[in-house]
Amino acid sequence: MRFGVNYTPRVGWFHHWIDFDADEVARDFDAIRELGADHVRVFPLWPIFQPNPTVVSAAALGRLDRVVELAGERGLEVAVDGLQGHLSSFDLLPSWLVSWHERNMFVDENVVAATAYYLETLARTVSAHPNAFAVTVGNEVNQFTGTVHPQPHPATSVQITAWLDRMIGAIRRGAPELLALHACYDASWYDDTQPFTLEHVARHGDLSVAHSWVFNGTAQRFGPDAFETRAHARYMVEVARAFQTDPDKGIWAQELGAPRNVLPAASVPGFIEGTVEQLAQAPHLYGITWWCSHDVSRGLGDFPELEYDLGLIDEHGRIKPEGLQVRDAVAAARKAPPSAPANVIDLDLAAVGGRAGLAPGGDFWTAYMDEARRGGHPQIRLVQSNAVRAHDEVRAKEGSTADA
Amino acid sequence: MRFGVNYTPRVGWFHHWIDFDADEVARDFDAIRELGADHVRVFPLWPIFQPNPTVVSAAALGRLDRVVELAGERGLEVAVDGLQGHLSSFDLLPSWLVSWHERNMFVDENVVAATAYYLETLARTVSAHPNAFAVTVGNEVNQFTGTVHPQPHPATSVQITAWLDRMIGAIRRGAPELLALHACYDASWYDDTQPFTLEHVARHGDLSVAHSWVFNGTAQRFGPDAFETRAHARYMVEVARAFQTDPDKGIWAQELGAPRNVLPAASVPGFIEGTVEQLAQAPHLYGITWWCSHDVSRGLGDFPELEYDLGLIDEHGRIKPEGLQVRDAVAAARKAPPSAPANVIDLDLAAVGGRAGLAPGGDFWTAYMDEARRGGHPQIRLVQSNAVRAHDEVRAKEGSTADA
Repeated sequence: MRFGVNYTPRVGWFHHWIDFDADEVARDFDAIRELGADHVRVFPLWPIFQPNPTVVSAAALGRLDRVVELAGERGLEVAVDGLQGHLSSFDLLPSWLVSWHERNMFVDENVVAATAYYLETLARTVSAHPNAFAVTVGNEVNQFTGTVHPQPHPATSVQITAWLDRMIGAIRRGAPELLALHACYDASWYDDTQPFTLEHVARHGDLSVAHSWVFNGTAQRFGPDAFETRAHARYMVEVARAFQTDPDKGIWAQELGAPRNVLPAASVPGFIEGTVEQLAQAPHLYGITWWCSHDVSRGLGDFPELEYDLGLIDEHGRIKPEGLQVRDAVAAARKAPPSAPANVIDLDLAAVGGRAGLAPGGDFWTAYMDEARRGGHPQIRLVQSNAVRAHDEVRAKEGSTADA
Repeated sequence: MRFGVNYTPRVGWFHHWIDFDADEVARDFDAIRELGADHVRVFPLWPIFQPNPTVVSAAALGRLDRVVELAGERGLEVAVDGLQGHLSSFDLLPSWLVSWHERNMFVDENVVAATAYYLETLARTVSAHPNAFAVTVGNEVNQFTGTVHPQPHPATSVQITAWLDRMIGAIRRGAPELLALHACYDASWYDDTQPFTLEHVARHGDLSVAHSWVFNGTAQRFGPDAFETRAHARYMVEVARAFQTDPDKGIWAQELGAPRNVLPAASVPGFIEGTVEQLAQAPHLYGITWWCSHDVSRGLGDFPELEYDLGLIDEHGRIKPEGLQVRDAVAAARKAPPSAPANVIDLDLAAVGGRAGLAPGGDFWTAYMDEARRGGHPQIRLVQSNAVRAHDEVRAKEGSTADA
């Protein structure tokens, strides 16, 4: 099991791509190494890296080169996400997508071609480094579609399949040796209006990727110290696994954190320990990557309150108690080998009311959590109900490539 | 009468702030000097210069410093616009204003305070250079309000008055010795739903600023070679003058160009000559600043077709015929002194149906153009109808500061 952190630069947050300071990055990576991390996940900002559809900034790529190099010098491997896109409440989309140019990120052919060009170029840059291991399409790109976003880019699931095929294909052309991935936030697990589906999560890319945030209603509903709250990340992993078609495919808990808006200080150590322990016992878990490395400086404005305190290292560069707790929880978990699931639980998505039945407090959620509390995390067996089969047949007919 | 160009960097357009190359800027300014220009207008990109409300990028300011310096070394003076904002169909707004953060640029107190902080900082940086002469709030910031924009920031005229006072005040604090200005596109002249009014155009800032684009319906309605098309820039200047309260205040034709979507090649020389000649004869004209220095490279994608060909210098750095025509027209116009208006024409805004009556083909427009064609451009005398007086009284009561 790998352990790493999502790298949030201490000085200037991700805007460091503008005011780049290699010495600061080096200092940040030194501190991250002290956490026992073996890798960092790194986030280019799309409008900086691709200010025009035909232009990928050479200066920005050069800075990314330097970041990967600095990580390598400290024994850190690197995963890079392409389309940011969405980060900590901020949408960062290039001007050629928005307002007067209002173009659909997932459907407009010119946009899709330009985006693929960017991802291929980015992947090629990253792949030149021996310590690079993965390229992810973007951070939670499903934030940009579905029904909840203020500026949606509407798309059907069939269109998303085609889009993911293009994007993952572009990454593979640029970096044939690296893992090609995509990442969704939990609407893909819990919300039937979300066109990025659990099939997309489970079957597209070289690993399945889960991002777990207990401010999604879990901690609010069950409480900060509840079994459900500490089991949530593992649950997301098990749900994703149920939709996989390749039994050997790994699952990466690529992003999880201890948000203080729902977890009081006293609950944080237990949350960290319980979450890491349960995750680490999952068969085929690829790794855990904590969100995030560094607190957002209080000198930066307009972040939602919870975003300032998610770091394992504070804004002055000092490792926080959470940093030691995560480090120790990972070390402890590594000593206990993954355990075979104690039981099997069937999931008939149609019967539980669609993805809402998987959401916190939903019918399937409740059955799963009862079972997990009683006898350990069960394996979820997908029951191919008529509805699901029909859905899959439609996708097959439309030329979808599962496990692309 | 000053003559300059709006500086559109030859390589990478305004995205050069990311991939900055001082040598390219120096080469661009050398070519601009050959046009006979005495100044350039320079455009920072807001999301690069102020990526977070509390952060004005030191790296970006350093690059702006270098740009102003390079201009000075070539005898060019510099005007800088702050809030870009809108440029050539692209909206470039910081992430802390848009989508999830959806905040009103003109009304939200936190945004207004952050914007003022940026403008003051920018103005201070610019004012350190002896060849800087003006800071403009932003390029056509009225693009972001009114009824036509896809993502409006609604505001009343009273709110705009307060906003302009804040912004111009911020520029004055940062650069007490420089001209503090704001700039609107012609909706402020022609559209009653536009909260930036002609009073704002004429009375706020150290000069009144006009931007004239004959693709606004003028060339379409009257034809590329029509009197009206060549008279349009001068007309906008005269309308602005009518709303001034200080008889000695200058007017800057800060942005005008020869857009090929409405002007065939054969019409361009006559358009340039006629436009410059008529502008130059206006009393109190501060200067003419052509849009733009360099063609947009055909290698850049997604610009509206007309935007690629507006330069006086082509994308390879060669001066175009238009460049020589503008240079020669300015030289010729400088030999003929401004002439006193031949006649006076009254404008009662209420009587002509509001600002629509000023628009191409409107009642006042038609009367003015008939007079101008017959006896030369007249002076417009604002008739303070009851409606206008009432409006002014409301503004005075709300604490508006005319001629702030």
